Amino acid sequence: MKKYPYPVSEVRRFLEPGPIVLVSSHWQGKDNIMTLGWQTVMEFSPSLIGCMISAGNHSFEMIKASRDCVINLPEVGLLDTVAQIGNCSGSNTDKFTRFGLTPEPAQSVGAPAVAECFASFECQIYDDVLVDSYNFFIFEVLCARVKSLTDWPQTMHYTGDGIFRLDGETVNRHQWFTKVS
Amino acid sequence: MKKYPYPVSEVRRFLEPGPIVLVSSHWQGKDNIMTLGWQTVMEFSPSLIGCMISAGNHSFEMIKASRDCVINLPEVGLLDTVAQIGNCSGSNTDKFTRFGLTPEPAQSVGAPAVAECFASFECQIYDDVLVDSYNFFIFEVLCARVKSLTDWPQTMHYTGDGIFRLDGETVNRHQWFTKVS
Repeated sequence: MKKYPYPVSEVRRFLEPGPIVLVSSHWQGKDNIMTLGWQTVMEFSPSLIGCMISAGNHSFEMIKASRDCVINLPEVGLLDTVAQIGNCSGSNTDKFTRFGLTPEPAQSVGAPAVAECFASFECQIYDDVLVDSYNFFIFEVLCARVKSLTDWPQTMHYTGDGIFRLDGETVNRHQWFTKVS
Repeated sequence: MKKYPYPVSEVRRFLEPGPIVLVSSHWQGKDNIMTLGWQTVMEFSPSLIGCMISAGNHSFEMIKASRDCVINLPEVGLLDTVAQIGNCSGSNTDKFTRFGLTPEPAQSVGAPAVAECFASFECQIYDDVLVDSYNFFIFEVLCARVKSLTDWPQTMHYTGDGIFRLDGETVNRHQWFTKVS
């Protein structure tokens, strides 16, 4: 299914609920993917996302060197893939090939998107002040693409020990919201 | 229901899935509560949580001055309260009184916990290097208390515009997890 352009200032709609994401990267001719659950929205505009990427991950040095990545949003159909991507290393595995995923050229960064994901948020390092001290990257989302503006993906939320919670029912309390929030 | 001590290095089990939380604070004789969805786990030990608390919130100056807060985990039964807490200001509202919530003395910080919440994580500022530039607080969880180690709360995940997703089914892929993660 094709992805469509999406306003970068609204990526919080997908990331604020706290789903597990796949972070794809590219450096020196090689692609990689990692599973991440330690991230937060930091600002609407510029569109900032903070990501804690442990230095033990092969992706850490790749992203630090290339200064960009793509944050991809997997749906529940990719749960087994997501779990397994988080339990092997890009140092000795071509994860796109091993897991049958398709690297898709990004529009604004060198890292590829993951074609099979519901949404792709192309990110560039905005501030690396906490990278050495906390492994914490502050990214700016330069370009966002989403598969459908009407459907909503069922996402996965990680609790540790191999246990995921899936998201469920939607509840609307718009009537109490007095400002954009 | 009583809360029991919980290891601070394992609070990620509750916070990594990305639930909306209530942040309670205390400064100059007054308590306050805010609704927050922009937070991430940053480290197991010390137990670090990064929180983007917009300077427009009354809680921002209270927490910056007192240097502590409690991150409380509300269950779905508190959804209406959570939505309304996020749409009024502590500058002219005593939110504990207005919403019938009970301030509960914390063990290690000056801020009160919210007795009606499933879990309370008592936090102290660990590093304020990004507070002035990004409104981003790095807290250390000094003490954690949880209502039950067997039940699991149904949490709320915010997507903007007054719309919450509730968490749903649990899926276990422990067999693929080769290390503590």
